[in-house]
Amino acid sequence: MADILHRIGVEHSSPKQVYDALTTLEGLSGWWAEKTSGNTDVGGVIEFRFGPGGFDMKVLELDPGRLVRWEVVDGPPEWIGTTVRWDLHQEDDFTIVLFKHEGWREPVEFMYHCSTKWGTFLMSLKQLIETGQGAPDPRDVRISNWH
Amino acid sequence: MADILHRIGVEHSSPKQVYDALTTLEGLSGWWAEKTSGNTDVGGVIEFRFGPGGFDMKVLELDPGRLVRWEVVDGPPEWIGTTVRWDLHQEDDFTIVLFKHEGWREPVEFMYHCSTKWGTFLMSLKQLIETGQGAPDPRDVRISNWH
Repeated sequence: MADILHRIGVEHSSPKQVYDALTTLEGLSGWWAEKTSGNTDVGGVIEFRFGPGGFDMKVLELDPGRLVRWEVVDGPPEWIGTTVRWDLHQEDDFTIVLFKHEGWREPVEFMYHCSTKWGTFLMSLKQLIETGQGAPDPRDVRISNWH
Repeated sequence: MADILHRIGVEHSSPKQVYDALTTLEGLSGWWAEKTSGNTDVGGVIEFRFGPGGFDMKVLELDPGRLVRWEVVDGPPEWIGTTVRWDLHQEDDFTIVLFKHEGWREPVEFMYHCSTKWGTFLMSLKQLIETGQGAPDPRDVRISNWH
């Protein structure tokens, strides 16, 4: 099993602001995929759409201002059954986001791609809160021929 | 053991160009650390300096246009003994870079940070070759309170 890890700090923000960007359709569509729909409550499924494909995430756990956990219930075969975990806490004037996409069965080339892509989307989340403007799909940062 | 993985594609480039940016002091100082010195041959040690700290990398293996491998011989304790591997190949008009920083003993919080930071430095490498202008330290992209 292999995991993707990332850490960012969102300046001049509170964990509540970051939590809202991870748990509302408006927030999620501002940094990850403009086409985001579904139910963001625990047990609900959120549908993220990127051009032809996408991911369906079941909300496993919510602890306001501290923790968000999703399970991938539909999407690319490599993603199904993996989980995504967001831990939030405050340090000085930063909200620290610890991100973990865990449970990849094999470190396939697609995992390398997704690791870098998650990094750029986390920077998009940071920018959304710091500046009011993220870079969600389809305005996301292109990193390679795989987009 | 845990690994950091990334994948980028450098557009309108050849593996040789990316290889040169990974194996010459001029190239390395254009995307990672402006203060880069040392010996870039196999068995040599390259010294990367970032403000007060830095990393010393011993060059383990070089296969022109295809592979670069380093071992961390000095730097933060979590890094010492880990290795960094760069695999290069061509796909269409992109040079694909598969990056692996392998052998972390534990997935400590610093590893989360380094994963995101490597992602931004890989984007700096891409920009250096695509535009002539990277974002090496001290002009690197700030991602958090840890820089």
